[in-house]
Amino acid sequence: MGEFGLIDRLTEGLDHTQPSTVVAVGDDAAVLDYPDTEVLVTTDMLLENVHFDLTYVPLKHLGYKAAVVNFSDIYAMNGRPRQITVSLGVSKRFTVEHIEELYSGIRLACSIYGVDIVGGDTCASHQGLVISITCIGDAPRGAAVRRSGAHPTDIICVSGDLGAAYMGLQLLEREKVASAGRPDFEPDFAGKEYIVERQLKPEARKDVVEALAKAGIVPTAMMDVSDGLSSELLHICKQSGVGCRVYEDRIPIDYQTALMAEELNMNLVTAALNGGEDYELLFTIPLAAHDKLHEIPGVREIGYITAPEKGCALVGRDGESEIPLRAQGWNPLAD
Amino acid sequence: MGEFGLIDRLTEGLDHTQPSTVVAVGDDAAVLDYPDTEVLVTTDMLLENVHFDLTYVPLKHLGYKAAVVNFSDIYAMNGRPRQITVSLGVSKRFTVEHIEELYSGIRLACSIYGVDIVGGDTCASHQGLVISITCIGDAPRGAAVRRSGAHPTDIICVSGDLGAAYMGLQLLEREKVASAGRPDFEPDFAGKEYIVERQLKPEARKDVVEALAKAGIVPTAMMDVSDGLSSELLHICKQSGVGCRVYEDRIPIDYQTALMAEELNMNLVTAALNGGEDYELLFTIPLAAHDKLHEIPGVREIGYITAPEKGCALVGRDGESEIPLRAQGWNPLAD
Repeated sequence: MGEFGLIDRLTEGLDHTQPSTVVAVGDDAAVLDYPDTEVLVTTDMLLENVHFDLTYVPLKHLGYKAAVVNFSDIYAMNGRPRQITVSLGVSKRFTVEHIEELYSGIRLACSIYGVDIVGGDTCASHQGLVISITCIGDAPRGAAVRRSGAHPTDIICVSGDLGAAYMGLQLLEREKVASAGRPDFEPDFAGKEYIVERQLKPEARKDVVEALAKAGIVPTAMMDVSDGLSSELLHICKQSGVGCRVYEDRIPIDYQTALMAEELNMNLVTAALNGGEDYELLFTIPLAAHDKLHEIPGVREIGYITAPEKGCALVGRDGESEIPLRAQGWNPLAD
Repeated sequence: MGEFGLIDRLTEGLDHTQPSTVVAVGDDAAVLDYPDTEVLVTTDMLLENVHFDLTYVPLKHLGYKAAVVNFSDIYAMNGRPRQITVSLGVSKRFTVEHIEELYSGIRLACSIYGVDIVGGDTCASHQGLVISITCIGDAPRGAAVRRSGAHPTDIICVSGDLGAAYMGLQLLEREKVASAGRPDFEPDFAGKEYIVERQLKPEARKDVVEALAKAGIVPTAMMDVSDGLSSELLHICKQSGVGCRVYEDRIPIDYQTALMAEELNMNLVTAALNGGEDYELLFTIPLAAHDKLHEIPGVREIGYITAPEKGCALVGRDGESEIPLRAQGWNPLAD
């Protein structure tokens, strides 16, 4: 049906709900109107067999996740996602129905988060599936929270729990290996649904950003946890010119994550510190905002910001021993 | 050196010259400030061996072109490009120096067109080189020119000349075939430099958009010629709900394009109508603006817009015969 026919089919019946969307799909560029705010732009590329494995990732989930990880970056700036553009490279082994399935996940995410699809590009690929999404969002002028604003004595907070997406990936990989050459193989995810879902269908913490606003808390620095807590903490400390202490016994970990780590004989804290793709929010708040923190459900204080010369360290369960934080985060260029 | 080290190296010393760039590379998202204008967003994905062949495309040229084709889409809306984000997927056969070479072309294009690099993503690819660029630009509120505004009696104009990039590609492909298995082979481009450059290092028609503004001409519809004149004219006519007549003897063709077509025994008009990647501007203007058109250098009137029931046709050199226009444009999904 050609590129234009396919794009027409994929974007058929798309509603535009954002007041800032003036012209969406179908011209040389989308036209957006952001009169009283700053515009936020983030982009993410996902490549088959680097970022996802279609052996166990359903296309609809993949589309959903590809959109949500971009929303997460906008929330991590204390912004609201408004529009995305979607570029797809598609090889011959994908049918139109496959691409529609992928796109239906993108559309579902957009519908749940209230984001418009305003453009994109679809082309043939000799190289498997390629997904590149750019998200545009906004924040009131001056309200975007950067990584560079953390001060000594600030409290370090993290939403949700950590390491689950990473342990979900380990489980999916194990079942993939076990299923090789056995067409009748049924993977067993009983009692581990949460970590599988955290890997396959993550959510962006829109609720946390909205609750912070409602409580009148403005984080001094914020990031989403995509590469692992250690790596993100080091980014914030480097860009803010500070150090930090994080308490091992404060790191939030779900019991399914802990069970899976035990089953696979992996170090649980290492998984929680370095496992990526949780898309939780890591942020720092002034000490004075401490009393309002209980208004934000599901957020935990895990440590505090120090002067730079103290360095960045994890404080052990004994409350005394310190291990320097290192960025061992998930790094697709390292392998 | 890892993703972050590579990104640091690639973006080292980047200046930001646009007043609308508030935060560029190094946070979850870029922060842009567009108080009094509409924001334009366009995106383009380039895949190795689909959109480019590194056998004959130098990496620096590739980077330059990847940026310029996005600028072209913004100019085609009567806008000005301001920022880009750059996502790269890189396989192991590329060294850091290769990627720096590619990036130097992107930086050169940005420096010439006055565009800031504000973000991106670099990841490993198992699948050759993948480049995805998103460009953000602006236009005064209400000034963006869409594809849908052409009216009957409007004059159809095109800048520069057509078919050269396509014939350049044919020449490069021919020399590639001739060089196979002959390491000492020297391709001969003498007398054909123009068409080779049109293919390898196209420019966006910033000058035309600026000249139109200076002359006080507001196009009723505009596109850039990336898929071929026929295809683009059909887009404008479909979206504007009109027909058109284009005169064969008015289509601007460079003599190198004509010579190459003769040498390869190809139909010259077909090449000029359907050859893509010229990145010239195709636009329609009201009849009343005709007298000011001489103020725009290098732009030619090639036909006029009609009522929709007249359809879209090419008028032959005899001034009478008509051939319906068909979209045979370069379509990467068709093969």
